[in-house]
Amino acid sequence: MLDFRPVLFILGVLLSTLAGAMCLPAIADLVSGNKDWQVFAVSAGFTGFIGGLFVFSSARRGKKSINVRQAFLLTSLAWIIIPAFGALPMIFADLNLTYTDAFFEAMSGITTTGSTVIVGLDNVQPGILLWRALLQWLGGIGIIGMAIAIMPLLQVGGMQLFRMESSDKSEKIMPRAAQLIAYIGFIYLSFTAVCAFLYWITGMTGFDAIAHAMTTIATGGFSTHDLSIGYFEDIRVELITIVFMLLGSLPFVLYLKVLRGNLRALWCDSQVQWFFTIVITAVGALAIYLWQTKGKDPITAISNSAFNVVSVITGTGYSNTDFSAWGPFALASFLFLMFIGGCAGSTTCGIKVFRFQVLYATALTQIRKLHEPHGVFLSYYNRKPIDETVESSVMGFFFLYALSFAVLATGLGLMGLDFLTAISGAATAISNVGPGLGATIGPAGTFITLPDSAKWLLSFGMLIGRLELFTIFVLLAPSFWRE
Amino acid sequence: MLDFRPVLFILGVLLSTLAGAMCLPAIADLVSGNKDWQVFAVSAGFTGFIGGLFVFSSARRGKKSINVRQAFLLTSLAWIIIPAFGALPMIFADLNLTYTDAFFEAMSGITTTGSTVIVGLDNVQPGILLWRALLQWLGGIGIIGMAIAIMPLLQVGGMQLFRMESSDKSEKIMPRAAQLIAYIGFIYLSFTAVCAFLYWITGMTGFDAIAHAMTTIATGGFSTHDLSIGYFEDIRVELITIVFMLLGSLPFVLYLKVLRGNLRALWCDSQVQWFFTIVITAVGALAIYLWQTKGKDPITAISNSAFNVVSVITGTGYSNTDFSAWGPFALASFLFLMFIGGCAGSTTCGIKVFRFQVLYATALTQIRKLHEPHGVFLSYYNRKPIDETVESSVMGFFFLYALSFAVLATGLGLMGLDFLTAISGAATAISNVGPGLGATIGPAGTFITLPDSAKWLLSFGMLIGRLELFTIFVLLAPSFWRE
Repeated sequence: MLDFRPVLFILGVLLSTLAGAMCLPAIADLVSGNKDWQVFAVSAGFTGFIGGLFVFSSARRGKKSINVRQAFLLTSLAWIIIPAFGALPMIFADLNLTYTDAFFEAMSGITTTGSTVIVGLDNVQPGILLWRALLQWLGGIGIIGMAIAIMPLLQVGGMQLFRMESSDKSEKIMPRAAQLIAYIGFIYLSFTAVCAFLYWITGMTGFDAIAHAMTTIATGGFSTHDLSIGYFEDIRVELITIVFMLLGSLPFVLYLKVLRGNLRALWCDSQVQWFFTIVITAVGALAIYLWQTKGKDPITAISNSAFNVVSVITGTGYSNTDFSAWGPFALASFLFLMFIGGCAGSTTCGIKVFRFQVLYATALTQIRKLHEPHGVFLSYYNRKPIDETVESSVMGFFFLYALSFAVLATGLGLMGLDFLTAISGAATAISNVGPGLGATIGPAGTFITLPDSAKWLLSFGMLIGRLELFTIFVLLAPSFWRE
Repeated sequence: MLDFRPVLFILGVLLSTLAGAMCLPAIADLVSGNKDWQVFAVSAGFTGFIGGLFVFSSARRGKKSINVRQAFLLTSLAWIIIPAFGALPMIFADLNLTYTDAFFEAMSGITTTGSTVIVGLDNVQPGILLWRALLQWLGGIGIIGMAIAIMPLLQVGGMQLFRMESSDKSEKIMPRAAQLIAYIGFIYLSFTAVCAFLYWITGMTGFDAIAHAMTTIATGGFSTHDLSIGYFEDIRVELITIVFMLLGSLPFVLYLKVLRGNLRALWCDSQVQWFFTIVITAVGALAIYLWQTKGKDPITAISNSAFNVVSVITGTGYSNTDFSAWGPFALASFLFLMFIGGCAGSTTCGIKVFRFQVLYATALTQIRKLHEPHGVFLSYYNRKPIDETVESSVMGFFFLYALSFAVLATGLGLMGLDFLTAISGAATAISNVGPGLGATIGPAGTFITLPDSAKWLLSFGMLIGRLELFTIFVLLAPSFWRE
């Protein structure tokens, strides 16, 4: 029998934490003297009550560990229940959102996607703006924690690569995942603080600085203004954003290694090298394109290209201009960049760089094998041979990713979305980017006009993308539920 | 040292055959009394001369067999040189085509794609129309021959699956590939004859019947009319077309088994079962969609859906209506259907059904493994366990297919094609379908308006798609040319 109690217990703890988090926007609203603080107080009370019920109904003495099936269930349920409750303040507040809208916004927050259904952000109460930023910030550290503590154990989509690495060396230094996560949480918090401070120096209000710092490091992309980062019209703000989006896209475990004295850990990691190679190539190509065909001067071309390429490839989704209007080459490039994502163990989503490395190495090995059928060739990742089960997991992941994208896009087409909106909506959801392409859901648009069915489908897309597909699909297999 | 002589010898033989084939349209033009016969005579003479040069400069006694590297080189060069010479009649004729256009048309012919740059087909001389049909017909039997004789040896993208099968049982019955191909060539010819006869009964002219029969069984899609099959406005013609497109999409080896008395060979083959399941599902879904949202009566909805789904999934590319105008759901569906293709060992292109079976089986096995980490699971294809190297080849193929598609689409975007044209153009080229989506290259459009660079890129896309990617990519690996 699958024992639900440990799952329920941890969910209860998570909900209670969420209730605690809801007190922050309540304080923000109280301080700024508007009565929306009640919205958060009520939501916190309700969420905390349910969380407490979960905890007390399932608490028991004895072993606290969970097995693999419970871990799958817990992970999936956590990423469904948290947005379900996280949506509460947005319904109660004066935003005219249906529950569908609020759930979409909360799912977009906790998965660090950044697609929004709220128009007129500049007039929204600070509490709600802080709540959106908090959801992304919590979602960011949450997924790093998952990637370190749970995903490698679940062997999802090649993540076992990172289990082996950590059990090689780090185990002796830090035997417990909880401790590792605490260290990394501290790094995450420090990055946020530094980012907020730098934003503040450029002249942002303290509130804007903190809210944007939280959604930058989480590569989330929620802003407090409809114009997103473009609102500030400040090249320094853009530069800070680029740097911290990139910092959010690297494996956080490596920062810890750097702090522990291994300064080369970051630069010698092949995933980090590949990531920067891809970013620089894409920035360069689009900068040349903007310079040559759109008549922008080279500096503007580079800064426009750098900001938007980094924003899309890291899945942040900030904008400073409507890149949908850059023409077909940019449209196609951004569509495919959406799928790439950052490094494993970061706050980014997408297919992720290490999978492309594994796929590339495997394809190359196969090509060599074809004309030298009797040769023995191994594929390498980070200078170590790739295990066959990893190869197979990564390729299975890639197939399911493409298939899920196709199903989502066709489904969105069935709901009446135009071709570009359907295709880019599916891509932006499954890769947790934020804006799509085109007039409707592009950087200048909003998701509010979509039909409810499309919002639920996109929420599902964000969920499976965030949990590396397999975590959800495992639950759909009948054999999972059989004894 | 890579010995080019056997490669040159076979290329010479192929060119001489092509020269011979050019005599048929010459006769057609002579009979119908127009002077275009000279175009073909000159082209045949030149092609035959070069072919002869190749043969005589490389002929030698002794061993005739070729090794793996030579086979890769031969296959690639054959599919480049034949369209290069096959384009000649189309330049010399009075069609106002540049060499780029003519090469594109010939490549589209020999790869059985069916994209065309010729507008006003109804006024084109019979010789040229016959030549286009002949190119597709030869390309169709050519690729079946390759799939039987060469691809499994080259172990390209999982094709070794079919080597094992044939060496299991058929080897004793038919030891030589040449004999097998002769039998299958006879089946191919018979299908063509029956199809032409049936077309003719419906009232088509003999010429139209033969030309369409050749491009139907080859799943090519070149027509003698701008309106394609829609020109005939005859449901019987559409039915015949559907049946023979489907026949062209099944593994031709199985027809031989049926002829040899194993009547269940066709229906018990899992690839055939999957193929029909996909076709029926897609036809049904689109028929319901057309019926419910476009106000078509059920019969029209089914016949419209069946014709266009089969035409796209088999990569034929005939049209009877502009399915581009069916709305976003149809656009997205057709885009993804393009990638599927038919069965291995048929005239179709695309990813092919057996690869989806392998990918699906592998993904399913992985999902089961995730929640039962200590279980042992095997993936099956056609009720036999799938070899690990096959799994890995198929998945490598899928990754390279997606990557090539993305690069082609981005490249087309760079050349100024709009988003839908770039995306669907890349898909239709690499999957050898024919028309794209949208106003420019959709069923109602033409490729003539595209820039030359796009035509060359699309030709390259057709080539790599037709030769299962690896055949071309192997040649691009520096290690192929090293000793």
